[in-house]
Amino acid sequence: MADKLIEPRTLKGFRDYVPTLMIPREQLMETARRVYRSFGFVPIDTPALEYTEILLGKGSEETDKQLYRFRDHGDRDVALRFDLTVPFARFAAEHIGQLGVPFKRYHIAPVWRGENTQRGRYREFVQCDFDTIGTTSNAADIEVALVIHDLMAALGFERFVIHINNRMILNGLLEEMQLTPQTPLLLRALDKLPKIGKEAVVAEMKERTGVSAEQALKIIHLAELSGQNEAILDQLTRDFGQNPKAAEGIARLRELVQVVHAAGVPDERIQIDVSIARGLDYYTGTVFETFLTDLPNIGSVCSGGRYDNLASLYTKQVLPGVGASLGLDRLLAAMEELKLLSREATAAPIFMVQFAKEYLGRYEQMARHLRQAGMGVEVFPEAKKLGQQLSYADKRGFRVALIAGPDDFAKAVWQVKDLRANASQTVAEAELIDHLRLHLEK
Amino acid sequence: MADKLIEPRTLKGFRDYVPTLMIPREQLMETARRVYRSFGFVPIDTPALEYTEILLGKGSEETDKQLYRFRDHGDRDVALRFDLTVPFARFAAEHIGQLGVPFKRYHIAPVWRGENTQRGRYREFVQCDFDTIGTTSNAADIEVALVIHDLMAALGFERFVIHINNRMILNGLLEEMQLTPQTPLLLRALDKLPKIGKEAVVAEMKERTGVSAEQALKIIHLAELSGQNEAILDQLTRDFGQNPKAAEGIARLRELVQVVHAAGVPDERIQIDVSIARGLDYYTGTVFETFLTDLPNIGSVCSGGRYDNLASLYTKQVLPGVGASLGLDRLLAAMEELKLLSREATAAPIFMVQFAKEYLGRYEQMARHLRQAGMGVEVFPEAKKLGQQLSYADKRGFRVALIAGPDDFAKAVWQVKDLRANASQTVAEAELIDHLRLHLEK
Repeated sequence: MADKLIEPRTLKGFRDYVPTLMIPREQLMETARRVYRSFGFVPIDTPALEYTEILLGKGSEETDKQLYRFRDHGDRDVALRFDLTVPFARFAAEHIGQLGVPFKRYHIAPVWRGENTQRGRYREFVQCDFDTIGTTSNAADIEVALVIHDLMAALGFERFVIHINNRMILNGLLEEMQLTPQTPLLLRALDKLPKIGKEAVVAEMKERTGVSAEQALKIIHLAELSGQNEAILDQLTRDFGQNPKAAEGIARLRELVQVVHAAGVPDERIQIDVSIARGLDYYTGTVFETFLTDLPNIGSVCSGGRYDNLASLYTKQVLPGVGASLGLDRLLAAMEELKLLSREATAAPIFMVQFAKEYLGRYEQMARHLRQAGMGVEVFPEAKKLGQQLSYADKRGFRVALIAGPDDFAKAVWQVKDLRANASQTVAEAELIDHLRLHLEK
Repeated sequence: MADKLIEPRTLKGFRDYVPTLMIPREQLMETARRVYRSFGFVPIDTPALEYTEILLGKGSEETDKQLYRFRDHGDRDVALRFDLTVPFARFAAEHIGQLGVPFKRYHIAPVWRGENTQRGRYREFVQCDFDTIGTTSNAADIEVALVIHDLMAALGFERFVIHINNRMILNGLLEEMQLTPQTPLLLRALDKLPKIGKEAVVAEMKERTGVSAEQALKIIHLAELSGQNEAILDQLTRDFGQNPKAAEGIARLRELVQVVHAAGVPDERIQIDVSIARGLDYYTGTVFETFLTDLPNIGSVCSGGRYDNLASLYTKQVLPGVGASLGLDRLLAAMEELKLLSREATAAPIFMVQFAKEYLGRYEQMARHLRQAGMGVEVFPEAKKLGQQLSYADKRGFRVALIAGPDDFAKAVWQVKDLRANASQTVAEAELIDHLRLHLEK
């Protein structure tokens, strides 16, 4: 090519996934799919591009600014989805009649937001959502906690806590005080409690919303409750249980704690935390956040909650639901920090040396036998020097190399080299599959 | 909501995947990933959006018209990728120094083309590519045939044939005749052979490219060779083997047939087919097409070939390679037609009836035991009437329903209902896991 080269580069805020990044990412998505499915959630997919009208239905100006929006060949006003919730609402409005309720779906797919790129934030990222819609039953809320728990455990985490709350308690209290319209302002003030202290929060609440000091203190009292789950539940019942809405929220939390315990989840992994609110308007019942004990500052790695009506913009059918979303990139960063990720650059554990070109048929034959026995094998494509091939295998992180030349074929044996221990042994061809299976299980 | 509803709809040429469509689609992608990995291919991912300059580097005007292209918030000229090959070329130019060669990657991801929507063609579709770059070794070409074979077999196909050819044979012949510049015109004429007959093709070749009748007939003779692989190879050697380039192409085909046979692939699944050309300029060596014996008209379901230089637009480093792409949508349509797809709307085989609300803890406990034993279980979220719950389970395609009420818990037994046979039996709780495992294996 005499032409000038085009500089190979990605857009700001976008990135490539090389194998060392993509292998654990793919494993994480596969684990999520496996766990979601084991609870009966089914996969769906929706288009990356939608009518802007659909996507912005509920959107704020903030969302609008972040939207990748343009006119397509048919002069339609279109945009790339910025989350999976809005497309799910549109999807549900279109298909729920055919699908029936309850409907449990998961959706793992990329979304795009043209936001400012800070450290660790990208303009393209994958969301992993699961939701049950069409039922108000607390069993669906409880299941969300179970899914989060079993998913975190399946990913290899041992020290994590699922924080739960129920928005009905605060909402009931505010309703009783006739403060419902002031909810967002009160929550915003409450959020500052750890920073500015109780007195300043009371002052802000009084000034911004016109509540009395007594009311402000009661709201703060609710947010400050802490302790063992049973103790919190008892105190909530004593202090707020006279309001029917709050009482229902408390009862739902109590049932959640009991059922999750009965199902065998260790008690220390579920913590009632009345300080979490999640979504000023969207969530109306149970809310979930998940924290890693060893990395508290990373924030919640799996969050969600119950909402009253998913698709009110697109259909008159009321679709209550509950669900959560796994923070894929945050979890991967955490797994890297906690050394839960392997750094392999290969997806197969066995490396087949091409010792002599004329035996390629034999190498490929054995490789197929091993694959049929469930073991991945890469055959090196060139009959290069042994040292070069083994150096390639080392660099990629293969665990075992298989070597056979004319002498070995004459004796029906294979040289098996453990690349980590750097130790070789001779194994009879008839025993090779069993030998490798045992070896790789170690 | 008093507001007017927004009509829920997708853009023309785009579609939703409801679970009955998405479950087999996801299974197919998982099988592809598993097979690719078992050969040592590793996953990568690249951004959906790229600089238009990068994507159009090699593009024709045709591609330009199909491109979803716009200006982003930073006024950059950007577009959605229309295939995975161009992004892979850009990716390789950027990262190959770090990754090293040979490099074997797979990439399963959506691409977008604003083309006219005919039946079965969508503007968003998933490509499943795998390639080995950085080596000219025929072992890599042979491996492509093995991957295609083992993938088709893993998907459940039994009657399929991988057609192979090598472009070096025709290229050698045309080079010798000094007709290389006319290659595209000659191939276009040759393509019409089945339709318009030999005489008309000779006439067109003479008129369009100025070849002699004798030359035209020799080209046609090459494309018409057919028979058993050995017979074709022998005749190719006799008739075209004196040209060094053609001879190398023939030798590579011969080695491919031999090694694939030695590796245990049934002979009837590999067919040398000198009539396939694939890609007028792009492919330069081995080419592959895969046909289903029972659905020949559906076209090739997995195609690819060898190319000389992947990333010449972005780097001076010469990167020869070979690979293929699985036609996901075409394969799914074929699997549906051949009844290789199940029509389930559930991802879990076991349905847990919520017989009485107060036992939810027991139901969730047993469900978790079963999941830990590897069996998917959906617990119905509401304690509705038994008939309603079973009708939901029937409709979704669950295989087994578990039912237990107070009497059963007192006796430590479960009712196991086979939803297909519509037959129930009582099973002791201690034996339930083993019983279900056996039952589901049937």
